[in-house]
Amino acid sequence: MQPRLSLITLGVDDVAASIAFYERLGFKASSDSTADVAFFDAGGVVLAVFGRAALAQDANRVVSSAAGFSGVTLAHNVATEKDVDTVLAEAVAAGATLAKPAAKTSWGGYAGYFADPDGHLWEVAHNPFWSFDNAGRIILPGVSP
Amino acid sequence: MQPRLSLITLGVDDVAASIAFYERLGFKASSDSTADVAFFDAGGVVLAVFGRAALAQDANRVVSSAAGFSGVTLAHNVATEKDVDTVLAEAVAAGATLAKPAAKTSWGGYAGYFADPDGHLWEVAHNPFWSFDNAGRIILPGVSP
Repeated sequence: MQPRLSLITLGVDDVAASIAFYERLGFKASSDSTADVAFFDAGGVVLAVFGRAALAQDANRVVSSAAGFSGVTLAHNVATEKDVDTVLAEAVAAGATLAKPAAKTSWGGYAGYFADPDGHLWEVAHNPFWSFDNAGRIILPGVSP
Repeated sequence: MQPRLSLITLGVDDVAASIAFYERLGFKASSDSTADVAFFDAGGVVLAVFGRAALAQDANRVVSSAAGFSGVTLAHNVATEKDVDTVLAEAVAAGATLAKPAAKTSWGGYAGYFADPDGHLWEVAHNPFWSFDNAGRIILPGVSP
């Protein structure tokens, strides 16, 4: 696993209001943002906002569970589907819990989740619509040079 | 405010165990990490682990509050103390809540917190012991080139 945090997703109550807030702060949403999710270039890392309940569901969690859902997930993006499987296996071998087995996603990618020892959720994802720059950072459509 | 997410802090139950876990995953702790907090180069963003209760206290929150503390904070690092004040004011003007007024910190810096509309906490910080590379990313002692 490369030591890289690729994307931070914030679960929010009102995606449109959240997009408006971050745009007011100076963040620019990428051109593939939708009414349901937005991606901002956050300088070496991608910041995303997504419905809180939808994010919990995507991570195989329930918002109202006793253990609680923090409203934040971390993401590690990789270049191939095989890399997703490899990284998830490495994480489990290192002490993580497999929170959601890797599978094809509704958006055309391939991803799974592991939970670190404190329950922080990391999505390991292959997004065939995104590529990386020479530094390994995600190239966001409409934002990255 | 520059559209930049500088550092992600995860509140954890056992910092030493968390450091060991992330080192097993391939992350390298910076040379200024201690028994209480560790900073990892996460490829364009800094990942930190810090005691969950200490992190909540630092952000002026109580772990067991009704509203709950997600166990995650985001950070925006700036070059001067004046920039901290400026960014906090910009954030409040954009709709954020001032969660903790800017003040000198115990570690020799200057920082405050704002909460975004969903309660996600952003620390705006000036750390005189850190500098930035040409791309505006934090230069971590002992890790960054």
